[in-house]
Amino acid sequence: MFHNEPCIFGGYPLDPCDELRGNDVALEKLLKSDNTRFIIYHNGTPLMDVSSGLEIFYLSSVQIEQISTVQTVFLGQDESHAYFAVQLNEKFPETEDRKYIDLRSIGRQVSNREFSGMPSLLARGKMILGWHDRHKFCSNCGKKSISIKGGYVRHCDACDSEHFPRVDPVVIMMVVRGDKCLLGRSPHFMPGMYSALAGFMEPGETIEEAVRREVLEEAGIKIGHVQYIKSQPWPFPSSLMIGAICEALNDEINIANDELEDAKWFDKDTIKQVLKNGGEDNFRVPEKLAIARHLLEYQLFEEWVNK
Amino acid sequence: MFHNEPCIFGGYPLDPCDELRGNDVALEKLLKSDNTRFIIYHNGTPLMDVSSGLEIFYLSSVQIEQISTVQTVFLGQDESHAYFAVQLNEKFPETEDRKYIDLRSIGRQVSNREFSGMPSLLARGKMILGWHDRHKFCSNCGKKSISIKGGYVRHCDACDSEHFPRVDPVVIMMVVRGDKCLLGRSPHFMPGMYSALAGFMEPGETIEEAVRREVLEEAGIKIGHVQYIKSQPWPFPSSLMIGAICEALNDEINIANDELEDAKWFDKDTIKQVLKNGGEDNFRVPEKLAIARHLLEYQLFEEWVNK
Repeated sequence: MFHNEPCIFGGYPLDPCDELRGNDVALEKLLKSDNTRFIIYHNGTPLMDVSSGLEIFYLSSVQIEQISTVQTVFLGQDESHAYFAVQLNEKFPETEDRKYIDLRSIGRQVSNREFSGMPSLLARGKMILGWHDRHKFCSNCGKKSISIKGGYVRHCDACDSEHFPRVDPVVIMMVVRGDKCLLGRSPHFMPGMYSALAGFMEPGETIEEAVRREVLEEAGIKIGHVQYIKSQPWPFPSSLMIGAICEALNDEINIANDELEDAKWFDKDTIKQVLKNGGEDNFRVPEKLAIARHLLEYQLFEEWVNK
Repeated sequence: MFHNEPCIFGGYPLDPCDELRGNDVALEKLLKSDNTRFIIYHNGTPLMDVSSGLEIFYLSSVQIEQISTVQTVFLGQDESHAYFAVQLNEKFPETEDRKYIDLRSIGRQVSNREFSGMPSLLARGKMILGWHDRHKFCSNCGKKSISIKGGYVRHCDACDSEHFPRVDPVVIMMVVRGDKCLLGRSPHFMPGMYSALAGFMEPGETIEEAVRREVLEEAGIKIGHVQYIKSQPWPFPSSLMIGAICEALNDEINIANDELEDAKWFDKDTIKQVLKNGGEDNFRVPEKLAIARHLLEYQLFEEWVNK
């Protein structure tokens, strides 16, 4: 069943080796090792080897030592290699065989293959490097902070604050009423695409409360039971998508704010059809890259209705 | 069943009225209304009316206008009132009838009564005021940022960045093997207390991956199936506790890092006993305030073992 598969950007392939982050001697050794692999990013986009398919283009420690770096993040180890994500001062040049490819494209290209951890590895590097880029200064006192512990902490020497990478939880939900499902479209969606409603969680609410608040706010629909299904790291820029299926208690849609330009009930046979044939200009479902697509899978719908 | 009850700090009692946050005119009107209630905090601790029980001590708009405030956060409305959380420049004085009481104490005192939303209301105020206090400066450029949209956004006029309150997801899990459960103790726990393992989620992992990583890191136990149970907002300072029950695949505990000073397998009859009688110096379970206690409830254990 598709909905039991991990989502793209999940399935981290390395041992993150948290215990090494505080060990400067060990990290220094790994940074200099011939076996270490460095993944290069430019504005959040990784450099890929496109010479025969789609692989990560790795630089070696010898190459990295000759280049000026802005930020390095320790990603962990597998049996053979240690991995770091690196933001360079200047753009490392592309060639015919190596190109910067954005993570959405990479996610799309691997989504139909056997699942590998490569998108997850690339996602973590992007998320933490992006966090450094947006957090060069201490939010507590305004002075410059510095990266420590392999890139997992920023420390402010001026006020002694520690800062940690953000993970912003987002609820995303398939709203079900009998054999119908509520989907909405944002103004920026491609023509005809409808997807699951979603929104950032706020401080002081549970996952279930966030689901109820978002659906009520965006579509005027009251929600009863909420069931967690699966989650997905989403590196744009650094969210945790928390996927749920939930029960609507009323029918009448009322779009109160400007987050949605439309929301409609779709019956499950129509959704099933579109999941098979890809849909057309008046109704498409989200691509397989998105957890919303996983939530829409017919099997999940069926299980819910028959439970 | 206790584990179906919401946790303390969940169950937000107001309509958060997100649509009003961008409406300066409406907010200004509410700030001046006789019906509006202002909750006062000092270093994250709310001022409580203790004259006859434990209620929130509210200031009125007339009183607030005469006091110098550092930060005001719009909390929402119920049928009768609008509510704001307020950080004052100087400590508003205590009397016999009004005291600052920390949120853990408040949570403890209400945890045995019929659930009301008061701790949740106080928690949200604490979380967002605390975030402002630690984020006075723009992390992108180091200049002072300003609070906008009812306190839900900080904007930097220098570089035009927007900053949003943090919600830090934490996984917390009851690790089960047959009829035994793995519990651990941190060095700062009260004597004899053992609790569920827990840890902050990192960028780029799913909830299930975070559960597996934490249990392996902290106790050397491999995890199979993971099942989400419930979540809890935790205002110390601003976390989302994501509670799960999960299946251990091996027995031998190996405490590798210094987060735990001990971890043990406890059988379910012992846990059941201690849940009833409160335990003693060599084994206590977490207080009802904590989601860990909810996860430990015997009924949940029973359902898992018999599923």
